Formats: sequence, C-alpha cells, structure tokens
Amino acid sequence: MPTPPPPDGAQRRGPAVVALGGGHGLSATLSALRLMTDQITAVVTVADDGGSSGRLRDELDVLPPGDLRMALAALCDDSDWGRTWRDVLQHRFASAGPLDQHALGNLLIVTLWELLDDPVAGLDWVGRLLGARGRVLPMTEVPLLIEADVLRADGRTETVRGQSAVAVTTDPIAQVRLVPEQPSACIHAVQAVDRADWVVLGPGSWYTSVLPHLLVPDLRSALHRADGRVIVTLNLSPEEDGETAGMHAEDYLDVLHAHAPDLGVHAVVADPRAVEDVSRLADRCAERDVRLLLRQVGRSDGSPRHDPLRLAAAFRDVVDGVLGDVPGQRA
Amino acid sequence: MPTPPPPDGAQRRGPAVVALGGGHGLSATLSALRLMTDQITAVVTVADDGGSSGRLRDELDVLPPGDLRMALAALCDDSDWGRTWRDVLQHRFASAGPLDQHALGNLLIVTLWELLDDPVAGLDWVGRLLGARGRVLPMTEVPLLIEADVLRADGRTETVRGQSAVAVTTDPIAQVRLVPEQPSACIHAVQAVDRADWVVLGPGSWYTSVLPHLLVPDLRSALHRADGRVIVTLNLSPEEDGETAGMHAEDYLDVLHAHAPDLGVHAVVADPRAVEDVSRLADRCAERDVRLLLRQVGRSDGSPRHDPLRLAAAFRDVVDGVLGDVPGQRA
Repeated sequence: MPTPPPPDGAQRRGPAVVALGGGHGLSATLSALRLMTDQITAVVTVADDGGSSGRLRDELDVLPPGDLRMALAALCDDSDWGRTWRDVLQHRFASAGPLDQHALGNLLIVTLWELLDDPVAGLDWVGRLLGARGRVLPMTEVPLLIEADVLRADGRTETVRGQSAVAVTTDPIAQVRLVPEQPSACIHAVQAVDRADWVVLGPGSWYTSVLPHLLVPDLRSALHRADGRVIVTLNLSPEEDGETAGMHAEDYLDVLHAHAPDLGVHAVVADPRAVEDVSRLADRCAERDVRLLLRQVGRSDGSPRHDPLRLAAAFRDVVDGVLGDVPGQRA
Repeated sequence: MPTPPPPDGAQRRGPAVVALGGGHGLSATLSALRLMTDQITAVVTVADDGGSSGRLRDELDVLPPGDLRMALAALCDDSDWGRTWRDVLQHRFASAGPLDQHALGNLLIVTLWELLDDPVAGLDWVGRLLGARGRVLPMTEVPLLIEADVLRADGRTETVRGQSAVAVTTDPIAQVRLVPEQPSACIHAVQAVDRADWVVLGPGSWYTSVLPHLLVPDLRSALHRADGRVIVTLNLSPEEDGETAGMHAEDYLDVLHAHAPDLGVHAVVADPRAVEDVSRLADRCAERDVRLLLRQVGRSDGSPRHDPLRLAAAFRDVVDGVLGDVPGQRA
C-alpha cells in the first residue's frame, strides 16, 4: 500500500516564485517551475463561469474551483500517492445525468470550503493531500465576473460579459474589467508576491487568465513593487478563434502595458517559432528595457503547449542572468 | 499544518474482528470495535437504492457507496488529519440543484472505482486517506436488489422490491431475497471471515442490512464455518415504523435462524431496556446454546443508539468469556 508523502519541514530548494494565471497556461508554468524550485505560489483567477466551475458557482454560490484544481494537480508530489490523488482530482464523471463533466476535485474543493468557511485553508488541505510542491491561492476570495469592451466590425463597441463569453470573442478586445470593480486581493497572494524572488505572468488566455490579476488593486500594487522581478511568458501561438485571434507576439506586451503602464517587466520568454517578426519583438522589448529570451519552449511535436523541461531551463536562464544571442537582444 | 497519519506497519493490537452490516448500525459497531482492536474488517451490504447512493447507481451504474462511506468514516484515524477527511467524506451538499444531498465521500469512492476499475482497491485508497483502523469491503462486487415477501393485512403475500421500499414496510416480512440470487461474495470478505477471531452481526435494519449477508452463498458458508465465533448485537428499540415494527428481541434471533438455520451464534448482546421480557429472550438463547449478555449498551439519553464505549466493553466481556448474572443466562 502506498504511503502519503512526508510532512512539511523538508529542506526547501530554489528561489521563491509566484506564478499568476489560470487554466492550462498556469498549469504549464507550474509544471516547469516545480523542476527548478520547491517554493512555488500559484495565484489563480476566479472569474470562470463556464463548465463544471460555472455550474458549481450557480448551484452553490462559491468561487469557481476549476483553475485552482488544475494548479494543485500540476504541483502534486511525484509519488504513487501524489499521482493517484491528482488523478482523482482531475477525474470527470461521464453520464447522461447531472454529474456529467463535473470534476471530482472541484467537488472536493467546494466541500472543504463549505466545511472550513475559508477558501485558503480549504486549498491548503487539498495541497496537503497531494503533497503539493507549493501553495495555490485564489486571486480574490470573492468570485468575479469579467467584462470586455469588444470592437465590432461595424465600428460599434459592445460589452461582452462573462469569462466564457469573452474567451470565444474573435473581434478585437479594447479593454477588460472586473465586476465587482476593484475587489480586495487575497492577502496571502499579495504577501507571496512581495516576498517572491521572481513573479511569472503567462502564458494563458491573455484577457481572461493573465490580465485579471492586474485589475485587482492590491495585487497590481504588489506587482508594481516587484519591478525587475517579473517574467512574462508569451503564448506559443495566436489562437485561431477566440480572444487573442490575430495577435502578434509584441501585441501581448502592448496589451499588458495598456492595462498596467507602471508594470516593470524584467524578461520575456518567447518561442521563436511563435514569433512572426523577431526583430520587431526585440525592438519592442528594448524600448521598454525588457530582456528577451528566445528559446524553444514548445513541445517537439509543434503543438501549442509548453514543454515543462524546456520552459524550466528558460526560467533558469532568466534567474541566473544568462541571455541568448538573438538580434536586438539586450546584454 | 496537520500531517497525515503514519504509514501502515505499526504494531497491531487486539483480536481480528469482522463486522457485517450496513448503515448506522454498522457504524455503531465499528465505533465500538475500534476502541478494542486495530484488526477490523467491515463487510457492507450493497443493496441500497435510495438517497445519494440510489441516484449514483442510476446515473453511473456503480455499487451504492453510501454504507461503505459511513463504515470508512467510523474507522478514521483519531487525528486532525483523519477527522478532517472523515468530515469531508461525510459532507453533503445542500442546494436547490442536482447536487443536493449528495455526499462528497460517495462521489470520491465512485471516482476511485472508475479510475481503478476495482471496488476493493478503491475503498483501500479511501481507507488510506483516512488512516482507517481497519478495512472496509463490499459484500459482493456487483450491486444487488433486495426483494421481500410481505404479509398484507388482508392475508395476501406481496413482493416489495428495493431496499428503500422494504425498509419502510410496516407489514410483517416473511422472507427477503437478493436479485441476482446467489451472487458471488467478495473473496476478501470471505477470507476475512475465515481468518477472524470474532464475527459481529447487527445491530441495524435487520432485513435490509443484516440478513443480506446470509443470502450470499460463499459468505453464508464462511459464517457457518465461523460457528462459535459469531456475536449478534440486537437493536436497541423496535422501529415505530418500518421493516421491524413490532418485533421483540427474540424475534431478531428467530428471523436469523429462519434465514440461516445452520448459523452457530456464540453470544447475543442486548440492552435490558430494549428487551420486553428478559426471561423469554434468555430461554430462547438457552435453547440454541447461545450466551446472553445483558448490558446497558445504549446511550444515557435513552436514544436508540449504541454508546461506543459501553458496546466496546460488552464486546470485551464476550471476547474474554465474562458473562453476566441475569436470570436464565448460561454460565
């Protein structure tokens, strides 16, 4: 019979890193970070209103647990124990009835929230179950709604409400907002950013998983204070359909800058295969005093997903101050 | 942060005891047994078709997990870790939607069954999570239906189908059957009975939680082989409504005998407050060469629930061969 992982207290290794995001993008970052450090904090968007999470929000009036569950799963202990409970958390029912597509981990997280009446304590218990190599926190302790101003082809600006609706918008997004506006940040998330050696933003759905963190005032302030310690990981490919359709590599930086002009980015990690015009991206980075690391961080099969080992190696390059030799890159 | 209980391998104490039953009755037995031994196996009926379990059977075509969950909860490690996961397992959602009254533990057990495709392995994983003081097994590895022949007031015999329907039948029950008839027993349950120092039947819903074990051929054979090691715990009060309405203490033994004439019972534990006529019960026990222990095993508040400490002390009396001094009791 497998045994649970050892209790906390083992020696910690590596720098303290906070990763902000949501969904599969954040999972990719966490899968990479766990290869280089044990001091990981994930800060997760809580605006999802689709799928299992959306149904749980509606039925039980709770934070959407799905992105939190995925982040926890990515940090599970690398043992029979950790992997089994990760698989349990990630399991989805398949039926013709009302449980169809509910993930067990979502139901487990909600149960702990209802029992403990404390979102952070509930997530810590799930982390303990998994022997997680780090901590997973919600961006805020209240569920949020995302609204986007979308530029329609006829020139009108229309408001699209809800993360799942915004995520599939193919017209250009001018701005995103949170409802309620200016929500309080989870205090533990702010503290984690303040104490971090490095902060990682992206990859992920830019408007619905990455930008929302910059719209929470206390978190934005903390990110401003993290000037010089922020790493931005760009997406591997523009979406064919959805919120970032047609965006170029440098556009991601421009959108970040538009929503948080005072954010000081230390380095950008981009896969050259996903950059249409390397010198244009390099110039944009140089203008903003940002180091550019061009590394093959995608999978060998060309799928638009990060390879954890390659992404981890790129993070190590950033952390150790090693930069590449691509045109336009700052020394 | 609390830590998980230590892995298996700690010294085992006490006799090996198998408890057969279901529902709250089995939970009461397990809560008592854990005070006197670490070598506990619960063998649980799998015929429930009501509530959360019944809905899961219908939607996902699985064994009903509810009674298995309650048995596991009763065996949880006595630590922050064990008690927290027990509370998680026992938590029920309350909503106006489809999750209402589903117990998280039921969903967790079903998830492990779907992942591992092995009912016993899935339950062992939940036991490990709880640091359970023993093992919980299903009576069979296929879900069962209970049918009862009920004597109506007008003299007709009618067949009532399904555990939840049988449990609320107030007319006398002539016989219960399983569908499918003669199912294969869980092999681990048969082995546990064969290796046990003691086997405990009851308390519980007599027709729907206690008798079904005697209707599984391999389990009945094992119980016959356990001649002289079987302890029967009688219920604390006849139900006002339901399957055992109007039954007297000795009737429980008669019903057992009618369904399994060759079962050799070593001792009966009964609370004198729940016995209408002590000498009648004592005579019936004497006729069948059964030791009778009359002990106050109910709670002090008079509620029809067993007190774990008192029931454990009664079990110790049986195990150590200490009998009381009530009229008609055999030395």
